[in-house]
Amino acid sequence: MQITAQYRTVRERSMQLCRPLKTEDYVVQPVVDVSPPKWHLGHTTWFFETFLLKPNVHGYTEFDPDYNFVFNSYYETVGARVVRTDRGNLSRPSVEDVLRYRDHVDAAMEAFLQQGLPDHLQALFVLGLQHEEQHQELLATDIKYILGHNPLLPAYGHPPYAATPPAIPTANSLRVPEGVYEIGFAGHGFCFDNELNRHKVYLQEYYINTTLVSNAEYLAFMEAGGYADFRYWHAEGWDWVKNHQVKNPLYWHLVNGQWMHYSWQGLQPLPPEEPVCHVSYYEAYAFAAWKGMRLPTEAEWEVAAPQLQWGMRWEWTESAYLPYPGFTKAPGAIGEYNGKFMVNQMVLRGASEVTPPGHSRITYRNFFQTPLRWQFTGIRLAK
Amino acid sequence: MQITAQYRTVRERSMQLCRPLKTEDYVVQPVVDVSPPKWHLGHTTWFFETFLLKPNVHGYTEFDPDYNFVFNSYYETVGARVVRTDRGNLSRPSVEDVLRYRDHVDAAMEAFLQQGLPDHLQALFVLGLQHEEQHQELLATDIKYILGHNPLLPAYGHPPYAATPPAIPTANSLRVPEGVYEIGFAGHGFCFDNELNRHKVYLQEYYINTTLVSNAEYLAFMEAGGYADFRYWHAEGWDWVKNHQVKNPLYWHLVNGQWMHYSWQGLQPLPPEEPVCHVSYYEAYAFAAWKGMRLPTEAEWEVAAPQLQWGMRWEWTESAYLPYPGFTKAPGAIGEYNGKFMVNQMVLRGASEVTPPGHSRITYRNFFQTPLRWQFTGIRLAK
Amino acid sequence: MQITAQYRTVRERSMQLCRPLKTEDYVVQPVVDVSPPKWHLGHTTWFFETFLLKPNVHGYTEFDPDYNFVFNSYYETVGARVVRTDRGNLSRPSVEDVLRYRDHVDAAMEAFLQQGLPDHLQALFVLGLQHEEQHQELLATDIKYILGHNPLLPAYGHPPYAATPPAIPTANSLRVPEGVYEIGFAGHGFCFDNELNRHKVYLQEYYINTTLVSNAEYLAFMEAGGYADFRYWHAEGWDWVKNHQVKNPLYWHLVNGQWMHYSWQGLQPLPPEEPVCHVSYYEAYAFAAWKGMRLPTEAEWEVAAPQLQWGMRWEWTESAYLPYPGFTKAPGAIGEYNGKFMVNQMVLRGASEVTPPGHSRITYRNFFQTPLRWQFTGIRLAK
Amino acid sequence: MQITAQYRTVRERSMQLCRPLKTEDYVVQPVVDVSPPKWHLGHTTWFFETFLLKPNVHGYTEFDPDYNFVFNSYYETVGARVVRTDRGNLSRPSVEDVLRYRDHVDAAMEAFLQQGLPDHLQALFVLGLQHEEQHQELLATDIKYILGHNPLLPAYGHPPYAATPPAIPTANSLRVPEGVYEIGFAGHGFCFDNELNRHKVYLQEYYINTTLVSNAEYLAFMEAGGYADFRYWHAEGWDWVKNHQVKNPLYWHLVNGQWMHYSWQGLQPLPPEEPVCHVSYYEAYAFAAWKGMRLPTEAEWEVAAPQLQWGMRWEWTESAYLPYPGFTKAPGAIGEYNGKFMVNQMVLRGASEVTPPGHSRITYRNFFQTPLRWQFTGIRLAK
Repeated sequence: MQITAQYRTVRERSMQLCRPLKTEDYVVQPVVDVSPPKWHLGHTTWFFETFLLKPNVHGYTEFDPDYNFVFNSYYETVGARVVRTDRGNLSRPSVEDVLRYRDHVDAAMEAFLQQGLPDHLQALFVLGLQHEEQHQELLATDIKYILGHNPLLPAYGHPPYAATPPAIPTANSLRVPEGVYEIGFAGHGFCFDNELNRHKVYLQEYYINTTLVSNAEYLAFMEAGGYADFRYWHAEGWDWVKNHQVKNPLYWHLVNGQWMHYSWQGLQPLPPEEPVCHVSYYEAYAFAAWKGMRLPTEAEWEVAAPQLQWGMRWEWTESAYLPYPGFTKAPGAIGEYNGKFMVNQMVLRGASEVTPPGHSRITYRNFFQTPLRWQFTGIRLAK
Repeated sequence: MQITAQYRTVRERSMQLCRPLKTEDYVVQPVVDVSPPKWHLGHTTWFFETFLLKPNVHGYTEFDPDYNFVFNSYYETVGARVVRTDRGNLSRPSVEDVLRYRDHVDAAMEAFLQQGLPDHLQALFVLGLQHEEQHQELLATDIKYILGHNPLLPAYGHPPYAATPPAIPTANSLRVPEGVYEIGFAGHGFCFDNELNRHKVYLQEYYINTTLVSNAEYLAFMEAGGYADFRYWHAEGWDWVKNHQVKNPLYWHLVNGQWMHYSWQGLQPLPPEEPVCHVSYYEAYAFAAWKGMRLPTEAEWEVAAPQLQWGMRWEWTESAYLPYPGFTKAPGAIGEYNGKFMVNQMVLRGASEVTPPGHSRITYRNFFQTPLRWQFTGIRLAK
Repeated sequence: MQITAQYRTVRERSMQLCRPLKTEDYVVQPVVDVSPPKWHLGHTTWFFETFLLKPNVHGYTEFDPDYNFVFNSYYETVGARVVRTDRGNLSRPSVEDVLRYRDHVDAAMEAFLQQGLPDHLQALFVLGLQHEEQHQELLATDIKYILGHNPLLPAYGHPPYAATPPAIPTANSLRVPEGVYEIGFAGHGFCFDNELNRHKVYLQEYYINTTLVSNAEYLAFMEAGGYADFRYWHAEGWDWVKNHQVKNPLYWHLVNGQWMHYSWQGLQPLPPEEPVCHVSYYEAYAFAAWKGMRLPTEAEWEVAAPQLQWGMRWEWTESAYLPYPGFTKAPGAIGEYNGKFMVNQMVLRGASEVTPPGHSRITYRNFFQTPLRWQFTGIRLAK
Repeated sequence: MQITAQYRTVRERSMQLCRPLKTEDYVVQPVVDVSPPKWHLGHTTWFFETFLLKPNVHGYTEFDPDYNFVFNSYYETVGARVVRTDRGNLSRPSVEDVLRYRDHVDAAMEAFLQQGLPDHLQALFVLGLQHEEQHQELLATDIKYILGHNPLLPAYGHPPYAATPPAIPTANSLRVPEGVYEIGFAGHGFCFDNELNRHKVYLQEYYINTTLVSNAEYLAFMEAGGYADFRYWHAEGWDWVKNHQVKNPLYWHLVNGQWMHYSWQGLQPLPPEEPVCHVSYYEAYAFAAWKGMRLPTEAEWEVAAPQLQWGMRWEWTESAYLPYPGFTKAPGAIGEYNGKFMVNQMVLRGASEVTPPGHSRITYRNFFQTPLRWQFTGIRLAK
């Protein structure tokens, strides 16, 4: 069964990501943006149970009615839930119980899939898989945060995915002429509602770099006093720098005069040629200002994407996360998926080294608040 | 002298706005967004002293060097300043001292202008006037807040400006066909840097209402339970509603079962036909969602503007405040004017009943953070 | 009329304290502990109106029913009130209105007193005067804070009261032998409920200094690194020092290498021989620990008081503010006077340079929270 | 070896308390006052390693130098430490590592004890045991909090200690005549520094109840509107009630109209005759005020103790936690044990159902901040 195999592959990948963890690592929530790994494992399972099994499988036995309260993330439609900041206070359900929950739901799902999925549930099923892939990316970023903020700085061991860095384009910069272009998803296959409708945009002529800003380039910005010069920053970014005493990207440590970074292998010397990672939108903007350039808009990015090296970092754009023309929400809980977050966030394009293989595409719109850095975020310049 | 008369007119208007105040009203700062009226009077004066008189008038005697610390608003280039939240803690300089400061600077400015303003200072001088006009709008909104949040609800007396409501268009709604349009300032006269460059945009076909949403229509939303139904709100807007227990626009009071609002004449019955005022972006968005419509983008607004009734409310748009293509900052302190605020704010278009006459235009880009309501903000619908 | 004269004297003293102020100085509240001077003027008036005139004077016309909301301080019995932190947001009632309020109430009070005060109201009347005297001390401390935290550091002019420093005892230290002593108020005249009952205590032998710690002695503690050595501090005091980066008493400024302090005459060189002032309990405790001594208990202080030089500073004791044996609260609103504050505060004994003449006595129990410094607080050592 | 057996008994009891836990339960910190169980296990071990093994055992190999940072609680003398609020963010060291740490230190300690403990280390060794017993009480209270605040309300299983409730005195109330009494530790055996010196106090005649306030009596207070009537509360307690919307003791739940409480066996009907538990000082004070009585002082408690039923609850007293006459701190890190907490806390006397057997005595002074409720605190009345 093609569809069952697909289900197993996605579900198994979540487990795979957690293998190097100790039981204790599944439990903690060092900051509000990070969720405990066992919560991700439970929440993605809860999605299949709540939206596919319970309404559609006659005689399905809910694993534990209390789990609805524990593993609902933000679906107001579905009822009360544990406050986000409290996820790290929950020692129960135990990891073992969560794995039993996964087994229980997986068995029911596979039995359900064997019978052949009705047409009207196809989209929801695919959304469940896409949803779990999104949480796989969060699992990886949250695990890095949990281990990377432990005073013992334990190593995870190896990168979550075997990285095949994309080929390096021959030209450093690409010129795109003025004119009307089309952006947004078209064609067959899955896309999120926020990638629709495909629509025309008018772009002025622009130049966009084919590669990302490297650690070495970013270090030059730091050494030139970039974090101490308000002129490069948004007013709000400058407050952020001062209030949090930000002096470098997340996970960077100056050890005996040498810049190190916390990586999957623990604390390691900073590789100068790699794309800079774990920067906020404020930092991306300030770096670009220091260079006399700017970040691309999401339309500029998408139009140029076939000719860029991308896929190693989520790339901050100069576009706020807003609905495309003709955007509509699905009815019911699934409609809470994207639209309600379209305010005070910036769009990121591309994919990162911890994006599950095949998950992203050039029309994909990721989004985060401007100060966040725990994602694998990087910088591309335009002008 | 044309230019001196212009200077006097603008400067006098600030004084005029404050005439109905008692000395005590000039001092307080009930919330961080509001500044004490005497601070506005001093800060606009400081602008002329700092950027025109001190660098350009030989032998000019600074009124008081300490005022630089007190009246600098956000110009990092110009040095340390009183923290914004502390403005309401300053009993000195007294109102009398601030008025003497204005007289001192006005005398020096008029003498300077009599000599003929050098060409290279024309732009800066006009910016000083425009800046004071912007603070005149803030003066009006801040005065309303100060009096309207006093438990005695004292009246200001009369509207700051004689209102001539714009004519009502014959059609309720306007259709604009798909195509390439131009937006941004062009031609002679003053504009802010954020209105440039004039550039092409591609718009899909849209409909836009020719009039604003009225109090009566908004009341219908309230009575239909709009503030209690998460489906109409951004996730962040819904948190805002719950955390602040928002149930109606700012200045609305339910008194013995009748809706009243605090107005320039004190507490008055709510006029049903007037455009709703003092709503946040969240509320504007939720109202539109409840109506099955949306807010216009700023480009849609600007293209349609000649055929709309506008000028009574600043109208929330669905556009984030971001630079236009080709936007560049002026060098030095003046360059801090707009660019550094281009993050996490939404654009408002139009003008309000307290915008100084002649200050706004259809390319004008106002901007505020999404929860703010003390400005005279309203709602126009599109689809 | 003896009693009318007494009333006038006390009431006039409040006005006298405010004479050097500008209108704007009456309005602001730079920190939550400080109240605007016009609030003190109104609140003390409200006390007489609420507790004496309204219940007892037939036909008395309340000045303004809304003032009850504005000028109630903490009497839950009497109804809703302006939240303490909001007092500085009130531009109205204006100073002029508050003075008219005082005149209105004073006229009614004097008429009432002329008729002869009924016996059962004598105690309440005296409490009203004592209450106003307590607010006179707060007026002085709050005025110093308001002017002393203004960036222009304006002078008040002269000390509020002509200071006759008490005679200096011949011995530096006093030995008190072990035994049973009595403390608490006895005899005729007014005392607060918290000074009762007079009762026996058992004291171990102790030594107590006859004079207060001077600025010079305190400076020695600072220069010996007292603020940087956790060993002298309570855990909670050490957190306070670090969180607020405390390095010296309130109002001290190091200007070009010289220690200055803000005084009634503005910024002045620190007088080395004067008793140190404006220190928190934490600082008093740490200084004593550094000296290898301790603060006296309130019983030790009271027993020794006739032989000490006191009256220039409120002296922190090592006694928590708790009820004396047999303490009882009066019924009704007046019963809220003292008892409900008997938790998490320390007792201060003596009087300060801004305590109204005749207000304090050796059984008087003042009390504040441990971090507070805006009162005229000093240090006496014991062992 | 008597001393080795004593060491083993105490150390084993900590392990015993944790047996019913799952690995995940060792990790979380739902509020700042609660520490993760594995932290208690590590910290008590760190005490022996740091103060006994490292300075005194030649050739002792430190288990892991990083543990000093993780397991130091509040000893400033000993260096930097994990901020208290961050204890629940530490997934590493794992529980397994902490148990290996305990084994490592226990083996070294037992070898050290076998050689005969030098005289000058006897006191420190006993302090180490007493310290671990104090953490055993915290372990029990923290475990109850962790499980009792989990939405699944898992049971611990059985009370940590077999309870033999003390005999019930025949008289309900005890009269103690006025006079001089002695309190504080005397005689042989261990006591904490805060129990010294033994000293005379003068007490007025008082009555003290021989038994504690029961759940049924406390419920009567609730049903009489005790939480809604400010007159019974300290001002600060009343703010606490309103800000936290407190309506009942901690762990009480109203389920379908019946009062339940979370106990070691999970959610159970409230036993009316048992002493009320988990109340703050504010609640104890308010209950006493409602009864027209008061809490005893610690001296009153200690003088009457031989004739009271005590040992089931820590009993709030009306005494602030302050030094006894002649109190001195030990030099060095051990001197940080008690003295630095002697501010803004109240004394509790007695012992609770989770106090390790033999740990408390009638001179024992426990202390907590006034709002805390997660300890097994109860109420005794006096007048």
